[in-house]
Amino acid sequence: MLNKQYTSMLQEKDVIFEIFQYATERAKVVGAENIYDFSLGNPSVPAPSIVNETIVQKVNTLDPLALHGYSPSFGIMETREKIAVFLNKKYGSSYKASNIFMAIGAAGALAHAFRAVTNPGDEIITFAPCFSEYKPYTAGAGLKLTIIPADIDTFQINFAAFEAQLNENTTAVLINSPNNPSGIVYSTETIKKLADILTEKSKEFGHPIYLISDEPYRDIIFEGVDAPYVANYYKNTLTCYSFSKSISLPGERIGYLAVHPDCIEANKIIEICPQISRTIGQNGAASLMQRTVADVCNYTSDLSVYETNKINTL
Amino acid sequence: MLNKQYTSMLQEKDVIFEIFQYATERAKVVGAENIYDFSLGNPSVPAPSIVNETIVQKVNTLDPLALHGYSPSFGIMETREKIAVFLNKKYGSSYKASNIFMAIGAAGALAHAFRAVTNPGDEIITFAPCFSEYKPYTAGAGLKLTIIPADIDTFQINFAAFEAQLNENTTAVLINSPNNPSGIVYSTETIKKLADILTEKSKEFGHPIYLISDEPYRDIIFEGVDAPYVANYYKNTLTCYSFSKSISLPGERIGYLAVHPDCIEANKIIEICPQISRTIGQNGAASLMQRTVADVCNYTSDLSVYETNKINTL
Repeated sequence: MLNKQYTSMLQEKDVIFEIFQYATERAKVVGAENIYDFSLGNPSVPAPSIVNETIVQKVNTLDPLALHGYSPSFGIMETREKIAVFLNKKYGSSYKASNIFMAIGAAGALAHAFRAVTNPGDEIITFAPCFSEYKPYTAGAGLKLTIIPADIDTFQINFAAFEAQLNENTTAVLINSPNNPSGIVYSTETIKKLADILTEKSKEFGHPIYLISDEPYRDIIFEGVDAPYVANYYKNTLTCYSFSKSISLPGERIGYLAVHPDCIEANKIIEICPQISRTIGQNGAASLMQRTVADVCNYTSDLSVYETNKINTL
Repeated sequence: MLNKQYTSMLQEKDVIFEIFQYATERAKVVGAENIYDFSLGNPSVPAPSIVNETIVQKVNTLDPLALHGYSPSFGIMETREKIAVFLNKKYGSSYKASNIFMAIGAAGALAHAFRAVTNPGDEIITFAPCFSEYKPYTAGAGLKLTIIPADIDTFQINFAAFEAQLNENTTAVLINSPNNPSGIVYSTETIKKLADILTEKSKEFGHPIYLISDEPYRDIIFEGVDAPYVANYYKNTLTCYSFSKSISLPGERIGYLAVHPDCIEANKIIEICPQISRTIGQNGAASLMQRTVADVCNYTSDLSVYETNKINTL
């Protein structure tokens, strides 16, 4: 018999993908230039030319057996090393390669983060407005997702509602800053207050409350905006990143999970990630893309375009 | 708290990947030329040159926004169309593009197949000897995996034991031919008998027993071996394929699920696949690879090398 859960999900399909599918179909009829598709966060600026140059260089110079062969479950070591070095230089963090797990986009990274630090039946808390896919993402890990109502004045965190909700069954909190869909960036003050509460409540409940920070939009920060690197303020942070927006590669499904080196059970969290992969049909990110991002992780697309767009629409 | 299930899995890690990791580490010390790594099915022949030529051509000629942008959840339509045409020409089947779902390797295809046609608690039956990863793969879908003992004379199916095991709770049967690890190919006679039993038992139990056919080694068939295309003999077949072995791209994580056009609920099975993706951290296969295999799905690596290897070891 067809699966009941997934069949019932057809009644509440992902509205984002529905619109995207429709736009794709319509583009064939009326021409792509006549479609303004605001569904997915598909970049409007191309990947920097170094990305395609790097792909071609890898393909033309590496042994194809090594290039296209299976990569280690944790990801290619050179890629993990380069990402750790890049993060440490940019944010003053102290990641080692062993803190980085390569994943198929932020969706893949989140799937591992959710499953690593929670058990089925646990509660995970996030904040409105939030990415609509968090519901199926967390449901797949057997979690109860609680969405805290928005602070509609600032779209920072509604701390009163958050503190009232936190309970012994809460084992993880999920944030997304810069936020999809609001565009808001959580301030240093917000992150510090969040960290203080999580530290206090972890102590009170006798178990760590892990912070899962979903950061695909991390590099799209407009001038003058206070945009702290979340993990620097709370050690029990699992940072989920994708190269989708920073270098405009959403279709290539490449990202990573970075576990703070001082996180409780940091090594074990990474160690169990390949075990998680085995149960959810994953087996590493595409090797050519892993090797490519190793070389270009310090580049971005011309992200200034997004700021210009914002100014022009104000 | 760290996840109990995944933490306990560390005690029974995937032995294949353990050996692969060890071999990778040792290669750094003693040189790759001194390592004979029989762990993973990593190809020993490179991808045909057309693969890398196609990658370079796509990168150099396509609009990067389209090339690297999000692809539809089902996969890129042109790729699905070309795969259907290729299969129909090679096997006399009648797939439409709408019967093909693009996935991240056979592991991704299997993850969708298991979840589409079963419900948690169902029994899935496979046959010894089998790929060691079937246990975590099926456990992740909440299934009870029963492994039928081998017919140690022929390594075809032990039908007596199989028929004795089939019961109302069995909703899927999983086969892998050519088989990893035995190398055996199920004969036309075996597949016909299997199909007859499944048809009869589906009628008796009042629900279809779906056949999930895991076929990453489909193109490695030595001369004179009877190697039927499984789905041609049983309409309720979900075929899981990977380009890992045929064109030596295991690290690129590219494959597909093909549902027989006359399969019961064929359209709905494909329709729910993106719903499954949403719960297991997947969001389509890498777009560059999808576009590449569209053009090269009718090529193979020089697979004759494997036959020569076999002869030389006899």
